[in-house]
Amino acid sequence: MKSDLDQIMQDRNLDALLVLGDAEHNAPMYYMTGGGHVNAATLIKPRGKDATLFHNDMEREEAAKTGLKTISYSTYSAKALTKEAKETGISLAALRLQKMLSDTNVTSGRVGVYGHTDLSSSFSMLIATQNLMPEIEFIGESGMDSVFLAAMETKTEAEIARIRKMGQITTEVVGKVQDFLTSHPVDENEVLIKEDGNPLTVSDVKGKINLWLAERGAENPEATIFAIGRDAGIPHSAGTPNDPIRLGKTIIFDIFPCEAGGGYFYDFTRTWCLGYAPKAEQKLHDEVREVYETVIDKMEIGMPFGELQKLTCELFEAQGHPSPLNTEAPLEGYVHSIGHGLGINVHERPWARIGQKDGLLVPGVVFTIEPGLYYPERGMGVRIENTYYARKDGKFERLAEYPFDLVVPMKG
Amino acid sequence: MKSDLDQIMQDRNLDALLVLGDAEHNAPMYYMTGGGHVNAATLIKPRGKDATLFHNDMEREEAAKTGLKTISYSTYSAKALTKEAKETGISLAALRLQKMLSDTNVTSGRVGVYGHTDLSSSFSMLIATQNLMPEIEFIGESGMDSVFLAAMETKTEAEIARIRKMGQITTEVVGKVQDFLTSHPVDENEVLIKEDGNPLTVSDVKGKINLWLAERGAENPEATIFAIGRDAGIPHSAGTPNDPIRLGKTIIFDIFPCEAGGGYFYDFTRTWCLGYAPKAEQKLHDEVREVYETVIDKMEIGMPFGELQKLTCELFEAQGHPSPLNTEAPLEGYVHSIGHGLGINVHERPWARIGQKDGLLVPGVVFTIEPGLYYPERGMGVRIENTYYARKDGKFERLAEYPFDLVVPMKG
Repeated sequence: MKSDLDQIMQDRNLDALLVLGDAEHNAPMYYMTGGGHVNAATLIKPRGKDATLFHNDMEREEAAKTGLKTISYSTYSAKALTKEAKETGISLAALRLQKMLSDTNVTSGRVGVYGHTDLSSSFSMLIATQNLMPEIEFIGESGMDSVFLAAMETKTEAEIARIRKMGQITTEVVGKVQDFLTSHPVDENEVLIKEDGNPLTVSDVKGKINLWLAERGAENPEATIFAIGRDAGIPHSAGTPNDPIRLGKTIIFDIFPCEAGGGYFYDFTRTWCLGYAPKAEQKLHDEVREVYETVIDKMEIGMPFGELQKLTCELFEAQGHPSPLNTEAPLEGYVHSIGHGLGINVHERPWARIGQKDGLLVPGVVFTIEPGLYYPERGMGVRIENTYYARKDGKFERLAEYPFDLVVPMKG
Repeated sequence: MKSDLDQIMQDRNLDALLVLGDAEHNAPMYYMTGGGHVNAATLIKPRGKDATLFHNDMEREEAAKTGLKTISYSTYSAKALTKEAKETGISLAALRLQKMLSDTNVTSGRVGVYGHTDLSSSFSMLIATQNLMPEIEFIGESGMDSVFLAAMETKTEAEIARIRKMGQITTEVVGKVQDFLTSHPVDENEVLIKEDGNPLTVSDVKGKINLWLAERGAENPEATIFAIGRDAGIPHSAGTPNDPIRLGKTIIFDIFPCEAGGGYFYDFTRTWCLGYAPKAEQKLHDEVREVYETVIDKMEIGMPFGELQKLTCELFEAQGHPSPLNTEAPLEGYVHSIGHGLGINVHERPWARIGQKDGLLVPGVVFTIEPGLYYPERGMGVRIENTYYARKDGKFERLAEYPFDLVVPMKG
């Protein structure tokens, strides 16, 4: 939780945090500010002290809404900085960062750098600032395990409520997609046909998904996977826009929207066959479902998430499928991870890594469970995914409900 | 244009480009790949040679759609890298980047780094890789003027067609917003009232905007400004979600959506008063409109964009308003720039900087013209913005049409 930040900084020997970029669609900045139309901001948080948000003058009211201490960039005269930059050959950005760090009493020590931002200009600024302030060392952390990801790993009740709401919106939209698909007539080739007589395509379906998400105050900044036929066998194929929707073909529908403006995510997958399913696909679905239920049964509060990945590999291998346990980077069978944490990032800690003792499913953690099997050359794939919350009362809560069925009957 | 990249690299003494991050919502990577669901990719382009795209194995089909030479990360054994990382204490990411650079024959020289990506992990990886490969120097460029921004500054006909299409979508949505607003009844306080009897709010309007954009295959990753009353006087206030919509109050409506998936943008602003306008606001609007028309008249192919900024400042000062020409960082009056280039980035080159001789309005350039006046303490603000294209035939084309009127009459 955010209240753990100072302790985590101390554990990692970090004296300050420097976060760059916009407040929206930028997880560390969103986490510190709560979002809003504050662009190209700079946030400095010394350990044990409050953060200061530096912002463009035109966005002063948006910045003030964050409730943080705010300072406008215009405090640092652009004319004077430009003059200094010309005389010294040092970039204006580096000169200004030096002043911002000094004004927040960060003049030495290890300063972690964060933000989803423009790498080129940030790298240039940090290298130049480091030369200006040799007592400071800028530190990059792994994308799998930063101070922020460590803090974000456990959620407050308020954060859970927002993720639960996104789960409700997500499953509502999935229901609308199911209704929409099953209401279409089909032609002699079992292709779904629109009112204008043309085939219904993946692109048409995605348009509707965007629409229904927008109506509910959500967006899908990382797109949606709606993959049919052979695409369904490739785990991260987003689907081919012009592909027609056909009865009996496998559809993998993986939807991971967030609150509009770049807030909390939800992550959910179902595998569908419209009308009927080929026997081999039904068998694959049954196998994934069986593994899913076993994994859910074996979840225990406090266990390492990696143990569930090991279990999943073993279960799939017992069914005769390759898995990463005994095949490096398998191209078919079970090819990914059993799940991942979820919050302001669609993928965040805890990670389900075999043999790692961190990534514990402790109270406050939100994570997905998403076993899957993929056989692209046979045009087959199955993934089932739900999002869970490890509660203080020792139970795991599935944050939204939706039927698991592979076969989705057509109406009428 | 993209075909200029090698020449620009040579002009800047760059031997290779290294682009990190997703293909979507990441301008340099989108520019090189054309978008698609390719996440956490690495692109290396040596000068004078084709680019290679390194990608996650699960996204191999999406990567192949880019038409680039592709190599899966799984080519570099994760097990072997993990072992090497453990033995050397060097991160797996840095070890892998070293191998990718070697495999594309980039083993020395100046390598520009780019991408809208996670700063912390990228910084960490670059510093470690630089230590591994002392013959290489990683170079960050200014966010105002990178190799990519220089190439993107002029557009092909195909790019123009996409921006023009976004202009059409944008003005269609603006028309729908106008219809929507003016169809509402008002209560005794001149507040617009919804069917359920509650006041229509900024948040309701933004929900509709998202919906109508999604229906047209567009999205607004950087949100929309719909600011009413005092908010209208603050140039980058996004608007207050719960603010009711009232007759006679100034609304600044600045909408800058892009193709879904993070493609080409459009940028457009109108200032509206529903029903009627206070005299002082009408005067302000007339002044901005007059400056707008003068600026449009003075545009010439090949001129520095900064000359238009200087002209705009002079025109507003002649009307009695402060401007950046003689006031540093003014808080009221004319407080920003006359415009900016536009493409895969909502803000890109050319910039309208006074006294700078680059940023020429040469054929192929797309840019906004957006004069505005702001008086937050008087609850007043006006901005008018359209997007223009400098054509080969020596003319400037306004890429979408919409009436300029301040007063938007209510229906019925």
